[in-house]
Amino acid sequence: MACKNAFYAQSGGVSAVINASACGVLQTARQHSEEIGKVYAGRNGIIGALTEDLIDTTVESEAAIAALKHTPGAAFGSCRYKLKSIQEHRAQYDRLIEVFHAHDIGFFFYNGGGDSQDTAYKVSLIGAERAYPIVCVGVPKTVDNDLPITDCSPGFGSAAKYLSTSIREAAFDVASMSRTSTKVFALEVMGRHAGWTTAACALAAEEEGGAPHILLLPEITFTEERFLAKVEEALTRYGHCVVAVSEGVKGPDGKFLSASGVKDAFGHAQLGGVAPVITQLITAKLGCRCHWAVANYLQRSARHIASAIDVEQAYAVGRAAVEFAIAGRSAVMPAIRRLSDAPYRWDIIEAPLSEVANQEKLLPPNFISADGFGITEAARRYLAPLIVGEAYPPFKDGLPDYVKLQNAPASKKLTQEFAV
Amino acid sequence: MACKNAFYAQSGGVSAVINASACGVLQTARQHSEEIGKVYAGRNGIIGALTEDLIDTTVESEAAIAALKHTPGAAFGSCRYKLKSIQEHRAQYDRLIEVFHAHDIGFFFYNGGGDSQDTAYKVSLIGAERAYPIVCVGVPKTVDNDLPITDCSPGFGSAAKYLSTSIREAAFDVASMSRTSTKVFALEVMGRHAGWTTAACALAAEEEGGAPHILLLPEITFTEERFLAKVEEALTRYGHCVVAVSEGVKGPDGKFLSASGVKDAFGHAQLGGVAPVITQLITAKLGCRCHWAVANYLQRSARHIASAIDVEQAYAVGRAAVEFAIAGRSAVMPAIRRLSDAPYRWDIIEAPLSEVANQEKLLPPNFISADGFGITEAARRYLAPLIVGEAYPPFKDGLPDYVKLQNAPASKKLTQEFAV
Repeated sequence: MACKNAFYAQSGGVSAVINASACGVLQTARQHSEEIGKVYAGRNGIIGALTEDLIDTTVESEAAIAALKHTPGAAFGSCRYKLKSIQEHRAQYDRLIEVFHAHDIGFFFYNGGGDSQDTAYKVSLIGAERAYPIVCVGVPKTVDNDLPITDCSPGFGSAAKYLSTSIREAAFDVASMSRTSTKVFALEVMGRHAGWTTAACALAAEEEGGAPHILLLPEITFTEERFLAKVEEALTRYGHCVVAVSEGVKGPDGKFLSASGVKDAFGHAQLGGVAPVITQLITAKLGCRCHWAVANYLQRSARHIASAIDVEQAYAVGRAAVEFAIAGRSAVMPAIRRLSDAPYRWDIIEAPLSEVANQEKLLPPNFISADGFGITEAARRYLAPLIVGEAYPPFKDGLPDYVKLQNAPASKKLTQEFAV
Repeated sequence: MACKNAFYAQSGGVSAVINASACGVLQTARQHSEEIGKVYAGRNGIIGALTEDLIDTTVESEAAIAALKHTPGAAFGSCRYKLKSIQEHRAQYDRLIEVFHAHDIGFFFYNGGGDSQDTAYKVSLIGAERAYPIVCVGVPKTVDNDLPITDCSPGFGSAAKYLSTSIREAAFDVASMSRTSTKVFALEVMGRHAGWTTAACALAAEEEGGAPHILLLPEITFTEERFLAKVEEALTRYGHCVVAVSEGVKGPDGKFLSASGVKDAFGHAQLGGVAPVITQLITAKLGCRCHWAVANYLQRSARHIASAIDVEQAYAVGRAAVEFAIAGRSAVMPAIRRLSDAPYRWDIIEAPLSEVANQEKLLPPNFISADGFGITEAARRYLAPLIVGEAYPPFKDGLPDYVKLQNAPASKKLTQEFAV
């Protein structure tokens, strides 16, 4: 068998550990130089393939590749760009095959969430349809933890650790201030439809009644009266109240409490700013002073407080993707399978892309407490192992020392440009 | 000399290291049991003294006191409560003397910012006026770094490290996304009038032109056209733009860009939410997608990413306060004196409370770049040493293991209540 080259790209919202998966892919590919030739990275995801903007990863030193394991963001650039259906946009697919052919690419690795797994799946379909031999393997990544089949998604554990740490710390702050000043603190958490990240905030509670006192999950309809009653209850019991609120919380009318009206490239509403909405409500109705924070990108890029288990799993799915590809497994994604909660044990299995693409795994009902404002013991058992272990990056001059790759472009082979 | 007891309390907005100062005070006092008897902590600052709500710190174990060094928030509770002038509110001062007398308190330690140093100063004045012998020593603390005389304020270095780390991480994120999605990221930073924390964000830049590309300092009047031109310049040059914006930025009309209208106990306007204001402006005028975060309490409670030098200084000013008091120095505050930038060397000197109280140290003009959107090399030399070194707290089950003290009330000696 001729030794084919590989294409690897990163897609969708990035995470603190997506580069750890890149590290797993690249290091493993380098160890299998008899089966895989060069690894080209797509600059900005699939767009790099469409525009023939390929990065030659072979010029990167071993040290630089190793440093990806502790560097947040997407080292090769990401994109929010979803391939249309093959029927709808045949030219895109023709172009992909043309670029792959020109660069002798026989392996396609796509690192991302549900939309990205859909892209990987479509590439596998078009390869088959055009009889272009390409092995397509998805690499899971999503801070939202909403991918199906896999027990958890790399990226989630680190966001969960950042959020639970941050809300524990902020809870110490508001408890200190509550006698004469701020009594309520609300932290706004990402997660459009699935409440995993918001649920993870509950890990901060050290005992029954510990902060956060209220979770506002996107799975539960927000009603003003029930929420305010719960805030009052916490204020009465503890003198202060800490709230973790999902950006995706919706009211009884089914509308996001705070929709900015802006939509992203996938047509999803761009959210943000629900924390000020609920704290204004509290101030207006209960008359107490509130503070709020919106973590936004900080929660998905905070590599300085990454979960060690998350880093390990992110690397492992990258490595497994290459191993699957070498074994000729296509249209699959390495998925994490949980073997036990405590001690936490896991391994990696194969998930068919057809069953992963475009699915969203919400919090199961048995993970949400009866009143809808908290999580159950089952959820706690699930979440707890995912934030364990610190994996500090190296620091230089007081700041994390992250790597920036050279990202040297590979020579173009095609003469035609392609507009995306 | 009879061995008098001491009163220690924490006041104002808390920080990641105010408890390290408490640790310095308590451990040093315990080492000087021949000069200082019991240390009573005020529950919620000066309010604890007024209401005779004193905490008996002697019941806390050595281990619990030691753990204060790595625990954020105010272990004894803080307050926003400023003593009125002696003329205006004589009853408050009478009460303080009464409580101090009842508990044989001869030492008064007050840990806080400018307003708190004013309280410590007033207590020293009333002690002299009433011929009640009390040694009053302030312990500096402010995330805002706006105390005069001291070269820096404990609390600032850790906030600076958190902010510069966070904005560096978020910059990796937005750089990854900028090809097809978000091009601008804005992080809102605390600091009502002084731009120290916003300036510290600039430490994240690794080279000329590195993120953050724009600082919006409260010392510089915001003008829409100049700001948008600067954003466009960054977008053209780098393809993305990272902004650190102070909550205290004002427009040409002298009004805060985002004043919530709410005022705190000191009559200062409560701010927050300027990041959405400036990103909405960018989207409206330049048509690009933006993300924003508001760090709020996270930046002042993030003990997990505290600066080691800040922790050391916070402890040192606590220890020095007790040493000053034992030496009979009253109406003073330990201040940090910088001896050299690189290598960073410092010691502790004595600052008169009369010169510290109610002063605000803004960024000096020579620390602000010519265009007002950045900092100078002089500022960088000043800021750089303050974030050096990691001082990670212990972790348990994936989360920082912070201490909660017993905070056992001391027996009351007085029969009269006092309303605050």
